[in-house]
Amino acid sequence: MLETYPAEINLDRVKLAAVIDALIACSEACTACADACLGEDSVAELTKCVRTNLDCADVCGTTARVLSRHTGYDANVSRGLLEACATVCRSCGDECGGHASMHEHCRICAEACRACERACRDLLAVMG
Amino acid sequence: MLETYPAEINLDRVKLAAVIDALIACSEACTACADACLGEDSVAELTKCVRTNLDCADVCGTTARVLSRHTGYDANVSRGLLEACATVCRSCGDECGGHASMHEHCRICAEACRACERACRDLLAVMG
Amino acid sequence: MLETYPAEINLDRVKLAAVIDALIACSEACTACADACLGEDSVAELTKCVRTNLDCADVCGTTARVLSRHTGYDANVSRGLLEACATVCRSCGDECGGHASMHEHCRICAEACRACERACRDLLAVMG
Amino acid sequence: MLETYPAEINLDRVKLAAVIDALIACSEACTACADACLGEDSVAELTKCVRTNLDCADVCGTTARVLSRHTGYDANVSRGLLEACATVCRSCGDECGGHASMHEHCRICAEACRACERACRDLLAVMG
Repeated sequence: MLETYPAEINLDRVKLAAVIDALIACSEACTACADACLGEDSVAELTKCVRTNLDCADVCGTTARVLSRHTGYDANVSRGLLEACATVCRSCGDECGGHASMHEHCRICAEACRACERACRDLLAVMG
Repeated sequence: MLETYPAEINLDRVKLAAVIDALIACSEACTACADACLGEDSVAELTKCVRTNLDCADVCGTTARVLSRHTGYDANVSRGLLEACATVCRSCGDECGGHASMHEHCRICAEACRACERACRDLLAVMG
Repeated sequence: MLETYPAEINLDRVKLAAVIDALIACSEACTACADACLGEDSVAELTKCVRTNLDCADVCGTTARVLSRHTGYDANVSRGLLEACATVCRSCGDECGGHASMHEHCRICAEACRACERACRDLLAVMG
Repeated sequence: MLETYPAEINLDRVKLAAVIDALIACSEACTACADACLGEDSVAELTKCVRTNLDCADVCGTTARVLSRHTGYDANVSRGLLEACATVCRSCGDECGGHASMHEHCRICAEACRACERACRDLLAVMG
């Protein structure tokens, strides 16, 4: 889809596509992990995990949308949001990582968060 | 991720995963198509397309989230939303389809909308 | 804001504004109620409530966006979404209503859901 | 609704409520302004405005959700997102401000963006 954009894109299209894919995968993993936590008998120990998952799902989803837009590009907006997104992915990866040995959904979600954090930081690095 | 949900899921997990994937792909295609339309010189002829893309992106994104939740399942909620989603996918597929010969992003987006509409109707059919 | 739209709007602007306000208020109430449920000691008894709140927040937020758009209006899209939204508001109002005597946030949220369901059905009635 | 949260909230509830209200108002103004721009004959001159509106609507909506959650509070997440949100509100306020003399929807939207930027920065200031 990125190849069909009719004007110039200010970022490397391959790297950009990788970040958008990671953001969408992380958003979906977090939505599913929040719900899986709600389905656990031990939900009372997972309330912080649910909350962080909900935040991460929202922020990754929004960041994917913003990065999917190229018209009237503003580097400050992309950069600020990528930084905020990396922060919430770190927070959610840490939280889910702490439950990974107990819950497979948290293990998978922590991996998605870490991959997404890396992708955001990689893009930030090339944006300078 | 669906396999890690700790309780019963009231729908076929393979079919459900296919619908969620189609919804996420359609939502992303619509977000990108809306922006690509804004980047065209002929944007004045594409304003309805932009609007329908924005609606379809929002509705597909929300439907993907709702279908990713299994705790406290309510078939009426899923069914109503799948019907609304199929309607907006039909509308957006028709609108983008009308520009498909001119704009590659509209052609790809129309395909994503039609695939998503089919996936929604397939799931509705097995829900009874 | 509705008064500044530069072309015709196919629905009564006063009624439309009332529905959009009700949708936004309901979406915010549901987001807050989901989190307040997570903060309760009895969260294990509130997992269905959290889930329904999350669905209702998403659907009301999306419906508010769709109804805030008038360019390229498609009555079928608005109608289908209003029906789906009324269904999820009913579901969430019932669920929160069941906890209203125990939790003030559920009582307030149930009221917001019922007001929103009424607003959706009122608009559907005049759409014919 | 904030008064019904069952545990401690790490931020001043009055100030927090003001920011959430500003975020929701700004998100709604931006969604409506994007669509009103699409309805203008001069849409070709407003494509950057539409895009910035869409970003600002998404980021403000997500920030409102994150700030509406208090369970498992992480100050780094709130702070990073408030900074990103202030940046996009500044960008959108400037863009809409440039069209304010021509389009009443842009004038109203620019005001909502500036009020929201101020509210985000005020909260950041007291978070230290």
